[in-house]
Amino acid sequence: MTRPAQPVVVDTTKSTHARLEPLTLSDVRLSDAFWEPRRRLNSEKTLPSQYRYLEETGRLDNFRRASGKLGGAYQGIYFNDSDVYKWLEAASWTLAGGDDPALERMVNTAISEVEDAQEPDGYLNTYFMFERARERWTDFDLHEMYCAGHLFQAAVAHYRATRSTRLLDVATRFADHICDTFGSGEGKRLAIDGHEEIEMALVELFRVTGDRRYLEEAEFFISARGRGTLGDPYGRFDPSYSQDHEPFSEQDEAVGHAVRAMYLYCGAADVYAENGDPALAAALERLWKNMTTRRMYVSGGIGAHHEGEAFGKDYELPNERAYTETCAAIGSVMWNWRMLAIEGGARYSDLIEHTLYNAVLPGVSLDGQHYFYQNPLADDGSHRRLPWFGCACCPPNFARLLASLPGYFYGKSEDALWVHLYANSEAVFHLEGHDPVLLRQSSRYPWDGAVEITVEGEGEFSLMLRIPSWCAEGATVAVNGGQSEAGISPGSYFELRRAWNPGDTVRLYLPMPVRLVESHPYVAENRGRVALMRGPLLYCVEVADNPGFDLRELVLDGEAPSARYAPDLLGGVAVLEARAHIVEPDSGWNENLYRVVGPNSGDHGDSTREVVAIPYYSWANREPGAMLVWLAGR
Amino acid sequence: MTRPAQPVVVDTTKSTHARLEPLTLSDVRLSDAFWEPRRRLNSEKTLPSQYRYLEETGRLDNFRRASGKLGGAYQGIYFNDSDVYKWLEAASWTLAGGDDPALERMVNTAISEVEDAQEPDGYLNTYFMFERARERWTDFDLHEMYCAGHLFQAAVAHYRATRSTRLLDVATRFADHICDTFGSGEGKRLAIDGHEEIEMALVELFRVTGDRRYLEEAEFFISARGRGTLGDPYGRFDPSYSQDHEPFSEQDEAVGHAVRAMYLYCGAADVYAENGDPALAAALERLWKNMTTRRMYVSGGIGAHHEGEAFGKDYELPNERAYTETCAAIGSVMWNWRMLAIEGGARYSDLIEHTLYNAVLPGVSLDGQHYFYQNPLADDGSHRRLPWFGCACCPPNFARLLASLPGYFYGKSEDALWVHLYANSEAVFHLEGHDPVLLRQSSRYPWDGAVEITVEGEGEFSLMLRIPSWCAEGATVAVNGGQSEAGISPGSYFELRRAWNPGDTVRLYLPMPVRLVESHPYVAENRGRVALMRGPLLYCVEVADNPGFDLRELVLDGEAPSARYAPDLLGGVAVLEARAHIVEPDSGWNENLYRVVGPNSGDHGDSTREVVAIPYYSWANREPGAMLVWLAGR
Repeated sequence: MTRPAQPVVVDTTKSTHARLEPLTLSDVRLSDAFWEPRRRLNSEKTLPSQYRYLEETGRLDNFRRASGKLGGAYQGIYFNDSDVYKWLEAASWTLAGGDDPALERMVNTAISEVEDAQEPDGYLNTYFMFERARERWTDFDLHEMYCAGHLFQAAVAHYRATRSTRLLDVATRFADHICDTFGSGEGKRLAIDGHEEIEMALVELFRVTGDRRYLEEAEFFISARGRGTLGDPYGRFDPSYSQDHEPFSEQDEAVGHAVRAMYLYCGAADVYAENGDPALAAALERLWKNMTTRRMYVSGGIGAHHEGEAFGKDYELPNERAYTETCAAIGSVMWNWRMLAIEGGARYSDLIEHTLYNAVLPGVSLDGQHYFYQNPLADDGSHRRLPWFGCACCPPNFARLLASLPGYFYGKSEDALWVHLYANSEAVFHLEGHDPVLLRQSSRYPWDGAVEITVEGEGEFSLMLRIPSWCAEGATVAVNGGQSEAGISPGSYFELRRAWNPGDTVRLYLPMPVRLVESHPYVAENRGRVALMRGPLLYCVEVADNPGFDLRELVLDGEAPSARYAPDLLGGVAVLEARAHIVEPDSGWNENLYRVVGPNSGDHGDSTREVVAIPYYSWANREPGAMLVWLAGR
Repeated sequence: MTRPAQPVVVDTTKSTHARLEPLTLSDVRLSDAFWEPRRRLNSEKTLPSQYRYLEETGRLDNFRRASGKLGGAYQGIYFNDSDVYKWLEAASWTLAGGDDPALERMVNTAISEVEDAQEPDGYLNTYFMFERARERWTDFDLHEMYCAGHLFQAAVAHYRATRSTRLLDVATRFADHICDTFGSGEGKRLAIDGHEEIEMALVELFRVTGDRRYLEEAEFFISARGRGTLGDPYGRFDPSYSQDHEPFSEQDEAVGHAVRAMYLYCGAADVYAENGDPALAAALERLWKNMTTRRMYVSGGIGAHHEGEAFGKDYELPNERAYTETCAAIGSVMWNWRMLAIEGGARYSDLIEHTLYNAVLPGVSLDGQHYFYQNPLADDGSHRRLPWFGCACCPPNFARLLASLPGYFYGKSEDALWVHLYANSEAVFHLEGHDPVLLRQSSRYPWDGAVEITVEGEGEFSLMLRIPSWCAEGATVAVNGGQSEAGISPGSYFELRRAWNPGDTVRLYLPMPVRLVESHPYVAENRGRVALMRGPLLYCVEVADNPGFDLRELVLDGEAPSARYAPDLLGGVAVLEARAHIVEPDSGWNENLYRVVGPNSGDHGDSTREVVAIPYYSWANREPGAMLVWLAGR
C-alpha cells in the first residue's frame, strides 16, 4: 500500500465523464434576502446549537468513551457517529465561507475526539467498541460503512475548506482499512452496506487524494449490490428496502427506503462521472424517469410510505400520509446535482431548484431551529416541527446543505459560465485561457423573475442561463439594454455566446403568473384537485389565513388567483388570493361514513369567500391548524 | 385458593347485563350452499393441513422441547404457541358439530403436548423456557398473556365441545398462576399485556368455571390499561399502539394496532356483560361510533396503516394501501357479537353480516387453502393469497371463526327467538316454560332475499327477525301465506309475537336492488367515486372479467347496473353488469406526472363498454390482475 504522504489536491471535481465542473465554494458569495439570512442563521445559531446537542446527547462522549477518556455505556442509536460527521461537514463548509474562530474551536475539538477514537488498524465506529468489538462487520444493516462515508465526506469538506489534513488522514486510514477488507479480490470479503453513503464518499475521497483505489472500492460497492450479498440474517427487510433486490445496472424503479435510494444513485452517478460505464448511465436515466414521472410529490418530495420510509408504487402519493423525509429531498438535490454535472441538462437544475424551495426548505422552521422529519402535503394541525430527534439525521443534513448551498448556484464547462439558480450573488470563474471573470447577479427571486447579471470579464465565452421549465412562456434575455434574444425555450439552458466586455449586463426576465397545476389522473387522491404554484414556489392554504371553515370544504372557482407581496408575513412572502366556494357535506350525512347515492347527493350548502395561500415552505410556523396543498376545484 | 375440582358447567353465556343468550353450538346446523361448503372445507382440508403446518414449522415441537422430549432451539416467533391454541379452538368447535375421529386424534395429541409442557407452578409458554426462563414476565409486549388467553379460549371451546376437562385443567392452572401474580392487591404486580386477548378469555373461563376470580382478573386488566403500566422499555411504540394511551373508560377513538383494539373492546364488552359498569358501556359506545362512522372501510375492514397494523385518522382510508388485516375483521365480528348480546341492537348484527361477507371472507381463497393478511380495496394484481405466514395469526383465526359460525346465526332472550343471519339452517331453542322449538330456515341468501322460516313449536313467544339496514325499502314479512305485516323498519329486529302452532311458516322478503354507495366527502380517495353493493355483498371489478383497458380509466355512466346469477363463475356468484366509459388520460400527459391546467385538461378520448363486477370476497381467485372497489362515476 503506497499512498502519497500529502493528498494530491484535486480541488474542484471536473470528472472525466462530466460536462460541468463546480466552482470552489469560496468563489461564490450569496448576498440575497432569501437564502443568505437562512445561511447566517445556520452558522450563527443552528451549528452552535447542534453542537450542544451533540454534547448533551452523548454523541461526542461516545468518541471519548471509545478513546478511553470516559467510561459508561454507549449512548443512543448505533449510527449516532454520523451526526457528528454531518455536523463537521456542515461546519467545514461554513468555514469555507469566512473566518469563525468559535466555530473553528468546536470543529477542532470534535476532530480531536474523532482522531483519538480511531483504532490502530484504521477502524472507527464508537458503537462497535469493547463488548461489541467482536460484532464489527457482522451485520451490514448497522450502518458501519454509512458512518464511514459521512466521515469521508466531512474530511473532504474540512480539507477543502481549511487545507488541514487532520480529518482527511483519519478518513484515509479508515478507507484503507475498508479497501483492505472488502472487495472482489482474493482474500477480501464480499459485502455491501444496507444504507448506502460510502459509495459517493469514496469517490470524493478519490477526487481529493487522487488514489484510484477509493474509486475502485466505490465501483465494487455499486456492482456488488443486488447479488444477495447483503442478505437479511434477521428477516427484517425485503431486499428492495436497501435497493438490493437486483443488480444496480438492471434497476428501473425507484424502490425502498428513499434516502438510501438517493444516496445509492448519488454514488452510481459519481462512479459514472469517473468511469463512464454506460450501464450505470442507463440505469440512472431509468430511475430518474421513474421517480420524476411516477413517484414524486408535486413538492419534489419523495417517499410515499411511512413503513420503511420508502417509495410507494407508481402514482401512489397520499397527501396527509406522505412520508417525504427531509433527508430524502436533500438526497434528491445531491443526486440531481451529480446528474447536472454529468449532462448539463436543465431538467436536473430545474428539479434542484424546485426541491430546495418546496421539499427541503419546508423541513425547517423560519427560526431555523425546528425540523420536520416527514413533510405531509395535507395536515390536520397535529404535525409540528421539533428541535431535535432521537434519530437526528435531518437537522445536520439540512445544515450541511445550507452551508454548501452557494456551490449549487453556478458551474463551468470548457468555455462557458453556467447559471443554475437565481439570487443576489457574486461568483468568480476561472476559465482556461481567460482571466478570472466576476459575475454579479441581482434579483428579488423567488418573488420576482427579473434577474440582472453583470459580467466583469473579457473574451469570447458563453453564458448559460437556466430558463426554468415553470416559465412556459414570455421569458426574455436582453444584453446591454438591447432587444430580447430569440430562441428561449423553457426547461433548457439559453446560451449567450459573445465577446464580452467588462460591465456587460444581461437582463433575464422570467414572468411569474400563478399556475394551477393538476396531477396525472392515476394519482387517486388528487382527482379533481389543483395545486397552486408561482415561479419556483408551491403554495398551500393554512387555517391561520383562512379561519372559520374546514379546509376540506374549499372548492376553488374558475378565476385565476392573484399574487401580492406581504412583507410582514412569515418573513416576507408573496401570497396568492383566490375566490372559492365553501361546500359543506350536506346534512344527510349525519354521522354516516357511507350512504346510498340518492337524489340529494352532491346537493350541498354553498358560500363563497376569498382564500389566501402561502408558500408551502412556510407552513406550520404559526398556531397549529390544518394545511392543504391540493385544492378541490377547476 | 379454593376451586371446585370439577368446573361448574355454565354452558351458555347468558350474562347478567346481556339481553341475549347465544345458542349452544350443537343446537344449530347449517345446510346452506354458501357457508356450509366452506365449513366442510375447513374441517376436511384446512384443519388437517394447518395441523401439518403446526408440525412442520416446529410449533408443536416447541411444546415437546419445553417438556424435555426434544432438544434443539425454540422455533419461530415468540408468540407461536398461540397458533396451536387457535387451531385447538377451531378443531374443538368443529368437533362440537359432529364426530371426526381423525381430527379428535390430532386434538388429543396436541393437548397432550400442551399438558406435558406446563410448569409445576402453572406457567406455560414454550418461548420462555430454559435460557429464557429468567425473562418470564419481564417484557409485556412479548405476548405471554396473549398466548395464555388463546389457551383459555381453546380450553373453553374444547370443554364445551367434548365435556373433557383436560385442556381446561391446564388453562385454569395457568389462569390461577396469573391471578396469583398480577393484580391490584398487595404483593401482586401491576402489569398488562401489550396485545390484548386475555381479558375476554378470562371472562369466558369465568363463565365455564363460575370462578369469579377470573372475572375480577379481567376487570383488573381492563382497568389497569392507560395508566403507564405497560411502559415501553425499548422505545419501540407509541402507547396508543397498544391502546395504553389513556384509561379505557376515557377512550373515544379507535387507535393503534387494529387487532389489539378489537380484542380489548371484546374484553371490555365481556366484562360489562358481567358487571354492568356504565363507564365501560359508554366507552364502548364512543369507540363503536368512532370506528364505524370515521375509520371503517366500506368492506367493514379496519386498519388504514401498514405501519403498526393500525387505525388511521378520521376519514383516512386509502384503498390500495389499506391494511385491513383479516384478523382485525374477525376481531370486529367478535366485538359486535358481544355488543349484540348486550343490547340486542340490529346495528351490530348488520355489521357482523357485512363484515363476514366483505372483510373476513376476502381473507381466504375459494379453495380454502390460501390467505390474505392484508385486504386492500384496490390492487394492481400483485397482491396474492399465501398458504401460510411466518406470523400465521390469520389462518387459524379464520378457521376458528368458520368452525364456530353456526353460533352467530341465532340467539334467544326470555321469550323470543332471534334470527341474526340468513341461510338454510336448523336451530333448536330451549326457552324457559316451553318445549324445545325447532326453527327451520330456507333461503338462497346471499343471492336472493327470500327467506322462509318454519317454526316447529307451540305457545306464545316472539320471533325476532333482523331487517338489514341495507334493505332500505320493500321488506315484507308474512305469516302462513297472509298479508305482509306492517311496521317493518330497516336496521332493526322485527318482532313477530303470536301464539305459534307447529308448522307455522313465516316468509321474509328482502329486495336486493343494486345499490350505488358513496363515501363521506372527507375521504380523500373516494371523491367522485361509488361502490357497488347488492344485498349484503360489496362488489369490485377485476381485470379477469374486464380485459383490454386500465381499470383506473373506468367511469360508470348513470344507468343502474343489473344483476345476473352466474352459476359457473367463482363457485357461483351473482355478477353485476353496468355501462361505463373508458376515459384514457389524454395524450398531453405524455410522461408527465404534473402539468399546468390548460384548455385540454379533461378533454379525453372516450369509449363505452359493458363492465362486470364480482363480489369483493371472490377477488384474486383467477389469474393475477388489477382490482378496484371504488369506481369513478355518477
